[in-house]
Amino acid sequence: MINNEIVNKIKSLKSDSGTHSPSIESILINCPEISIDVDACFLSNPYATDLFVDYFNNDLIENKKLRNYLEFYPPQNRQIAKVISQIIGVDFNNIFVGNGAIEIIQAVLHRYVGNNLCIVLPTFSSYYEFVKPTTKVHYFYLQKEYDFSFVIEDYLKFIKFNNCDSAVLINPNNPNGGYIEKDQILYILEELKDLDVVILDESFIHFAYEGNDMANMSIDYICKTYPNLVLIKSMSKDFGIAGIRAGYALLSKTRVDELLSNGFLWNVSGLSTYFFQLYGNKKFQDQYEIVRKNYILNTKMFISELSKIHGIKVYSSKSNFVLVELLVNISSFDFTMYLLINYGVYIRDCSDKFGLEGQFIRIASRSFEENHKIIDSLKKCLNEFFDQKNIGF
Amino acid sequence: MINNEIVNKIKSLKSDSGTHSPSIESILINCPEISIDVDACFLSNPYATDLFVDYFNNDLIENKKLRNYLEFYPPQNRQIAKVISQIIGVDFNNIFVGNGAIEIIQAVLHRYVGNNLCIVLPTFSSYYEFVKPTTKVHYFYLQKEYDFSFVIEDYLKFIKFNNCDSAVLINPNNPNGGYIEKDQILYILEELKDLDVVILDESFIHFAYEGNDMANMSIDYICKTYPNLVLIKSMSKDFGIAGIRAGYALLSKTRVDELLSNGFLWNVSGLSTYFFQLYGNKKFQDQYEIVRKNYILNTKMFISELSKIHGIKVYSSKSNFVLVELLVNISSFDFTMYLLINYGVYIRDCSDKFGLEGQFIRIASRSFEENHKIIDSLKKCLNEFFDQKNIGF
Repeated sequence: MINNEIVNKIKSLKSDSGTHSPSIESILINCPEISIDVDACFLSNPYATDLFVDYFNNDLIENKKLRNYLEFYPPQNRQIAKVISQIIGVDFNNIFVGNGAIEIIQAVLHRYVGNNLCIVLPTFSSYYEFVKPTTKVHYFYLQKEYDFSFVIEDYLKFIKFNNCDSAVLINPNNPNGGYIEKDQILYILEELKDLDVVILDESFIHFAYEGNDMANMSIDYICKTYPNLVLIKSMSKDFGIAGIRAGYALLSKTRVDELLSNGFLWNVSGLSTYFFQLYGNKKFQDQYEIVRKNYILNTKMFISELSKIHGIKVYSSKSNFVLVELLVNISSFDFTMYLLINYGVYIRDCSDKFGLEGQFIRIASRSFEENHKIIDSLKKCLNEFFDQKNIGF
Repeated sequence: MINNEIVNKIKSLKSDSGTHSPSIESILINCPEISIDVDACFLSNPYATDLFVDYFNNDLIENKKLRNYLEFYPPQNRQIAKVISQIIGVDFNNIFVGNGAIEIIQAVLHRYVGNNLCIVLPTFSSYYEFVKPTTKVHYFYLQKEYDFSFVIEDYLKFIKFNNCDSAVLINPNNPNGGYIEKDQILYILEELKDLDVVILDESFIHFAYEGNDMANMSIDYICKTYPNLVLIKSMSKDFGIAGIRAGYALLSKTRVDELLSNGFLWNVSGLSTYFFQLYGNKKFQDQYEIVRKNYILNTKMFISELSKIHGIKVYSSKSNFVLVELLVNISSFDFTMYLLINYGVYIRDCSDKFGLEGQFIRIASRSFEENHKIIDSLKKCLNEFFDQKNIGF
């Protein structure tokens, strides 16, 4: 049986969190009766966090350098941009560093997006929530009937038909994990080169792959070719450091200069500075690449196992999460609550996601052991449902 | 003799830093031949940093909770606002949390400041650098002839005469340290209640005092009385944690709602969240109050000693720094370089500060021992100048 008191508390936390999941911390504080074993809402590589924490402990704690990063003003934006420039080989004049990718998304939506913005649905909600009141949003729906696949020519026609001056693409897309191949993305950018702004959000690109070598699919290098492009890079997911708030964007020098000319002073914290310094360390880069590729393998195996489970449909994903449709007669919210309260597995109910009609959940790939627990719990939960034994809604 | 190569390197760092001092870190990286013993540019209570670092080590390192603050998304703005609300007794609906005070200054200048903004000079440069292109800035100059004192009636007349719809006051003011007493601030707010926005920046208020009890002079509680007021609170200076980027503002619920309705998601990092949680701890608050008051005493003594030095004029300050005029025939930049290179004491050359014509420097109060070193070095440096022995410009 489900505990309605807990459900109501979580409903209230959810309403405080807007179109995002309540954090695991706020659930634990407000519902001490719940024990969360696996946070499968959280889209982040836990092995990358392990690697980061190892370096952090050694560099800052054992070498007693942490105080410097807490006490003093961090370097200014351009100084961090120079560090990133060394890592990715892009001119620092094209790099703008943010307090997480979300600060950059906000700035670009408020300053550069024009009157007609094309957004692909389903998507990350901030892209439509943070637009200016004067921006009309045109939604290009991915169709459930076509497995949420992205048809380029339809997309380009839609933009033209609606006279869009701005567009957002997330690749791989959140929340369905659909991936547009590199050649196709380059084709799209060329076709959209006359728009005022094309935002390409590569927050999950480190989890995508095309060949067996699982090479990094980012198109960092293209930013000079298209002055209308804003390429957004979150460090939260790939490096597993969401609490630090590190992100950057690649965009035209003109726009970087404009942004820095009247704001964004000291917006990069001490710890974010430390992260970017660490990212510049060759040994760290090599270790990170191993961790990144292992996590992709782990995720592929996870998705493959999920796909075998009876009673759900798993959509194709090249990210570190999957969109899952419940084929049983239960709402996604109720299912999410049941899994959380009875199995300690916290997944993302997608009932508040625009463009997803039906019973959808999103499940993140976590560590090998956690993924096993997720699979096991899902199976048990669905079996209970089929047996109609314990589920009482 | 001064080393011109070093001077040129620092000039170049300075030019990269805009109207701010190059950070001590960037000087040390670029000029390894310099050793900096005291950073007296840096306006921060070092004893508060000690206290914070003690708690940090115990709560996060020894109790192994640091990872949570690095790995996971931090709580949203309103959740931190609720924590602050408990501490200061102001409704959380009136609290907006920033990635440092500077993020809030930027947001308010871009969104709420109107066409005619009154700024007191000299001031913190971001207030005029971050205004929108459509905002005309009217500068109310504090006069050197009157020791940069602030004459309220002149100020109010100036605002009226220039039809200002917006105003900024920093109390105590940066860079001169001038303090407007609480009763007078309340009078000013009442007189300016018809403006669109009055920004009152209390970043240094924890260093100000009126009575012998050195009670906190903040007027947090007044934010509900004046819907046009934006009260800005930096945690960087008083709590000595500039690297964490923690700040908040008290303003009308309408404006808080507006700001949060299309932006500022996850703008508060994990460590900033930890700081605010700690700030809510009664034991920490009591210890902080002791540290705050001791630092004020330390600073009073420091300013008193500085005032006795021959060859400089020390302006009245109720903050944790003083504005100092060189009465000897040397530029403030040359003097700053000489003191840095020969004595390892880094002070703020004010030659780039609007509204300060002449040879001005700003000196921060640091720890007891560091202040002693500053006094000693200044005396020696000025004596050398009087002897004309070693200063070769």
